[in-house]
Amino acid sequence: MSEITVVVDALGGDNAPDVVLEGVAEALKQDASIHVILTGPEELVVSFADAHDRVEAVPTTEVIEMGEHPANAVRRKKDSSIVVGCRLVKEGRAQGFFSAGSTGACMAAATLVIGRIKGVKRPAIASVVPAPNSRLIFTDMGANADCKPEYLVQFGQMGRVYAQVALGVDNPTVGLLNIGEEETKGSKFAQECHALMKEQVPNFIGNAEGRSLAMGGFDVIVTDGFTGNVALKVYEGVGMAMLQGIKEAIYSSTKAKVGGLLIKDALSEFKKKVSADEYGGAQLLGVKGVCLIGHGSSDAHAICSGVLATAAAIEQDMPGKLTAAIESAAALGDEAGE
Amino acid sequence: MSEITVVVDALGGDNAPDVVLEGVAEALKQDASIHVILTGPEELVVSFADAHDRVEAVPTTEVIEMGEHPANAVRRKKDSSIVVGCRLVKEGRAQGFFSAGSTGACMAAATLVIGRIKGVKRPAIASVVPAPNSRLIFTDMGANADCKPEYLVQFGQMGRVYAQVALGVDNPTVGLLNIGEEETKGSKFAQECHALMKEQVPNFIGNAEGRSLAMGGFDVIVTDGFTGNVALKVYEGVGMAMLQGIKEAIYSSTKAKVGGLLIKDALSEFKKKVSADEYGGAQLLGVKGVCLIGHGSSDAHAICSGVLATAAAIEQDMPGKLTAAIESAAALGDEAGE
Repeated sequence: MSEITVVVDALGGDNAPDVVLEGVAEALKQDASIHVILTGPEELVVSFADAHDRVEAVPTTEVIEMGEHPANAVRRKKDSSIVVGCRLVKEGRAQGFFSAGSTGACMAAATLVIGRIKGVKRPAIASVVPAPNSRLIFTDMGANADCKPEYLVQFGQMGRVYAQVALGVDNPTVGLLNIGEEETKGSKFAQECHALMKEQVPNFIGNAEGRSLAMGGFDVIVTDGFTGNVALKVYEGVGMAMLQGIKEAIYSSTKAKVGGLLIKDALSEFKKKVSADEYGGAQLLGVKGVCLIGHGSSDAHAICSGVLATAAAIEQDMPGKLTAAIESAAALGDEAGE
Repeated sequence: MSEITVVVDALGGDNAPDVVLEGVAEALKQDASIHVILTGPEELVVSFADAHDRVEAVPTTEVIEMGEHPANAVRRKKDSSIVVGCRLVKEGRAQGFFSAGSTGACMAAATLVIGRIKGVKRPAIASVVPAPNSRLIFTDMGANADCKPEYLVQFGQMGRVYAQVALGVDNPTVGLLNIGEEETKGSKFAQECHALMKEQVPNFIGNAEGRSLAMGGFDVIVTDGFTGNVALKVYEGVGMAMLQGIKEAIYSSTKAKVGGLLIKDALSEFKKKVSADEYGGAQLLGVKGVCLIGHGSSDAHAICSGVLATAAAIEQDMPGKLTAAIESAAALGDEAGE
């Protein structure tokens, strides 16, 4: 196995840089094969590199803030931790980039600096959805607010690769997020997507409804980035509100409080099971390198998972597998077109 | 107060007719001012009417099944419990219709038979979202998979009326479901909707993200019927999966089982708080009569709530208030256009 090098954005996330450094240190401890390049303010990254083996510091002088216009910020701030991080992947000094910073900026930098895989129309954001009793890949979660049906076809093809790598499923099933099970249901756009995916996405098994995100039944669920981002945020909101509401209910009486203490461990296990932190973040599928984006609220544990997940995607050659999937789909398309 | 008459579809729902009859009986008991007309198979509705005061039977011979194409079924089955039910509203023999049957068929029948309020471009499905710590109106939940921005403007105007009536808010705030808070965020469609709603929807306070559905912050959240239906189903799916997962976690150890018994009452209270059953179903906003559609899985309690909610909407003259809101918006638009 060749050396695995992950660039980590020391400034990514609400709790950066402390939790980032802590998470990186933990990841280095857990996986002895990982090398890390840290981008960020000079004294910060140099002192961390001095104190740790297998860490290189690449000082940067600029910061992309959460509120900035992603593409503009990436074009202007060429010496930011995000842009430099992606450039290191482009130059081959690392094979993957991880940041818990601005999703838009990471996406823009990865697309503009690292570049798209040949044949990929639009990179997409994808993630494992850790439901109580199922695991599936959901994409696009917000990279492309306006989509054409052919984009969703590729999201399905790429989502299958991600499901193979992240979930270990041989021949993942793919569903289209829609508002009814029948082929003729949904918006005109959804109907066009259905028709095209049926032809061009291997193991496409039809429409998925919103419930399937939490209830399972598919290995990959595909949608446009607008619907995907709304669905993701609804999902997170309901999860948070439910746990909060249950906690309040338990605190409502002395009897329930005692019960709450007794179920505390079981509930912690459950919360861990449905926590997205275990999966390290969202992958940007379709660029010539691994790019993982962690949640802004990541703690050190989530950062550590993100670094390890980036390394795992590198080790499994996600970009190579995505390239092969897109090439073989294009070849099949050419054949069908002849 | 004039007499309130609600038509109830005896055949609506997965557990019809038993739970429907039980729910109607309970509603009659709880509210002495309600009259019910029951549509459905002759012996069923006649024997129920014979056994209960304030109930009239209107026998029908046809049934619209859940899987049928809504508009086609409504055109063909003119003697179905749904079509006849809507006709009774059209003819003024009742002021509202309640069914837990096919949402599509109820919507098609209400639109085709009762008819739209003058000036309403598209009726929309709206419902109260009973989150753990907030209540809001969400619309459109699936009536219109393909929308134009001007439809969403009206959904906002009508949603406000519903929030006034169902939530008792004087001057409800309205948000547009989008994937970012800033005006420039989201799909082209969402941006167009934002620009138009800002001008034409009273108390429009900007974009709402998916989390707001469960976390609150708005009295009304507006979206197209595709996104709305996906969001609703994600919401339901996460809620079900979470409760199921927590139950399984509690059953995982003896200690947790004991704790589970102690929190049972608190958890039941919580489940009741977040149950949509309390609100009786979804309203079809924009037709010349009250039309409420219950969940297919409604039990007798949910049916009872549905009948009472239909009566309440009649008593508060929802159609009249919706008409006034649409008229005043049109008048303002005319002024602005002069």
